[in-house]
Amino acid sequence: MTCLVHGFEGSAVSAGIRYQGRLDLGLIASDEPAVLAAVFTRNEVKAAHVLAGLDRLSRGEPYVRAVVVNSGNANACTGNEGVAHVHEICSLVAREMGINSDDVMVSSTGVIGQSLPMGRIGDAVPSLVKGLSENGLEAVADAILTTDTVRKTAVRCIDIEGVGVTVAGMAKGAGMIGPDMGPPRATMLSFVLSDARVDPAWWQGALERSVSDTFNRITIDGDTSTNDTVMALANGLAGNMEINDTRYGESFEAILRDLLQDLARQIVRDGEGVTKCVTLVVRGARTRGEADRIARTIAGSPLVKTAFFGEDPNWGRILAAAGRAGFPLDQGLISLAFDDIEIVRMGTGAGKEAEDLAKKVMAAGEFTVVLDLGLGQEEARILTGDLSIDYVRINANYRT
Amino acid sequence: MTCLVHGFEGSAVSAGIRYQGRLDLGLIASDEPAVLAAVFTRNEVKAAHVLAGLDRLSRGEPYVRAVVVNSGNANACTGNEGVAHVHEICSLVAREMGINSDDVMVSSTGVIGQSLPMGRIGDAVPSLVKGLSENGLEAVADAILTTDTVRKTAVRCIDIEGVGVTVAGMAKGAGMIGPDMGPPRATMLSFVLSDARVDPAWWQGALERSVSDTFNRITIDGDTSTNDTVMALANGLAGNMEINDTRYGESFEAILRDLLQDLARQIVRDGEGVTKCVTLVVRGARTRGEADRIARTIAGSPLVKTAFFGEDPNWGRILAAAGRAGFPLDQGLISLAFDDIEIVRMGTGAGKEAEDLAKKVMAAGEFTVVLDLGLGQEEARILTGDLSIDYVRINANYRT
Repeated sequence: MTCLVHGFEGSAVSAGIRYQGRLDLGLIASDEPAVLAAVFTRNEVKAAHVLAGLDRLSRGEPYVRAVVVNSGNANACTGNEGVAHVHEICSLVAREMGINSDDVMVSSTGVIGQSLPMGRIGDAVPSLVKGLSENGLEAVADAILTTDTVRKTAVRCIDIEGVGVTVAGMAKGAGMIGPDMGPPRATMLSFVLSDARVDPAWWQGALERSVSDTFNRITIDGDTSTNDTVMALANGLAGNMEINDTRYGESFEAILRDLLQDLARQIVRDGEGVTKCVTLVVRGARTRGEADRIARTIAGSPLVKTAFFGEDPNWGRILAAAGRAGFPLDQGLISLAFDDIEIVRMGTGAGKEAEDLAKKVMAAGEFTVVLDLGLGQEEARILTGDLSIDYVRINANYRT
Repeated sequence: MTCLVHGFEGSAVSAGIRYQGRLDLGLIASDEPAVLAAVFTRNEVKAAHVLAGLDRLSRGEPYVRAVVVNSGNANACTGNEGVAHVHEICSLVAREMGINSDDVMVSSTGVIGQSLPMGRIGDAVPSLVKGLSENGLEAVADAILTTDTVRKTAVRCIDIEGVGVTVAGMAKGAGMIGPDMGPPRATMLSFVLSDARVDPAWWQGALERSVSDTFNRITIDGDTSTNDTVMALANGLAGNMEINDTRYGESFEAILRDLLQDLARQIVRDGEGVTKCVTLVVRGARTRGEADRIARTIAGSPLVKTAFFGEDPNWGRILAAAGRAGFPLDQGLISLAFDDIEIVRMGTGAGKEAEDLAKKVMAAGEFTVVLDLGLGQEEARILTGDLSIDYVRINANYRT
């Protein structure tokens, strides 16, 4: 993190989980018990750490001291052995740190269906714990990366009646990105660390609402992962008066949401093969749900995504995708704009001049596409990327 | 067609609709009024010929004499002008043929959002009609192609109490293939021609049921087109006793379905950039609807499709896609096989040896993937292709 958060330390080592000489095992530790809020993937196929995490959270004890995270191996579809490995990692780290095994959370990301190399992980734990330092959080942010090309961190600060409170976050994710995370229950990972003193129930609620407006509204390939996880730890060391629903909740939640949106945008920008970061807005819908479903259908269309890659304002593909989303439309009412260039008006094209201007808009790395259905007042937005030759290259060869 | 069908003639010309020197305008004509059955895309955004076709069919007069079809331009999202152009084509062709304008159907495929070049089409109609011949149907099958690389035709024959009856079909389609066609209401086009004498209501029903089992169960990119159209013409010239629900309906429908399945498979094999033709079977589901939805989610997953392209039996991606389809699963009950090689048993991998064998299966151009959910007795199958570098290349540059 570019900014320290009181009482948090980090460490990362190369355990050789999948590759040699690459940081792949990270540890985040809090000096004091920290209130944990967490959301996990709603995929029906869940990684071992998600199953173990749900079980841990169901016990209603929200305080934790440490989070261990590995890349290179998802520990998903590994059966009972996979869950046993999660517990074993908790024990190994707890013993080395001199804390309770229940106070350690685990997350994994990487290839599905392979056993964790527990020998190598066990061997690495002592140096992992020994390496903990205030400056070590950046190394953790590096250790969680897989096909990512850049480290993703962000930090926000707020003043609570004269007390400065910090919230910082790290994230990873470039492929299998179509997060759908919910109440204790995305392969994106994100860890949020704050020195705020918070009411545990409010903290969980604030995380859920913020995730639903940010990480859950991005898609690279639409493939919701078995491992998506966001954990937010607040250790209270800033010494502010406790934040809850009625006290500073709204303003703190605003910076939390802004932080997560920053990380979410970093994920899309660094998405596998992504060359365009597109904000897709569907407005003029009858309901927010319809707008959301139509936006996701467009964002998932291979033809729309390849046209983005080709910088071709091929609006027919966008309208065709909207038309197959499952809701009645009136094609004569539809309009479409790339940034401020309207290229479809009342269902038909605005002509070559407008398309040439739209082409220029698309040449930029980031632009907005606004589809107005002309049916109502509701809207939804999705942040998405294009589908490039490199996406195929990366994913045709990921395991080999 | 490799086989003549009594009383049908075809003709095709290069009208210069989008490219010069390429067959792009075709005509199918029947000597006698033929019973028309038709299904069109259920996309909410519908091409002009679909809107005009629905309107024509709603008048309940099932006999037609001719079908005109153009490639290079979808005449979709072209407003009232587009529909007027359809009527104009009907009039031009009817006048030249000396028949009624209502007896002419139109279909289009190509780029969305551009006006048909009516001047060039009008100029081409006289030579189009003049060129009609029994051997001209193959030229029509060529004229409907867009990004297709091969002509797609098939033919079946059946004996009805000593009378030989023929049914032949042609199709096109390589991209924007995720057909969802229904009772009078892909961009795939298919024309089925038969000399059978048929009951009109039975003919429409037989086409709907057959399409729902064949064309509607293929997907290349999942992008349901604004133009998908199947028209089946039966002119009765074989002189058989009329086929209906109770008389030879079942056996004739079986060959119709077999014909359409043949054409559907040809479409997937020639799909844009497709190097693998995969039959995806989801069984052990609680309901057929769930099996269907899960199969379509897997078939639409970019990660699964790129793994097919890479010949990587990356089963974790298949399970992850199944898990996000929206139905409760028990991951511990899932098994998965590539042809007869089981690579997942009870939710976990069967090991490297099995995966190496599965890799060999994938090296073939066609294979079957069977996902057993272990929950029930229902199943569904989808025919799909992989996602290759060429798919992206073709679609990033389609309009330029």
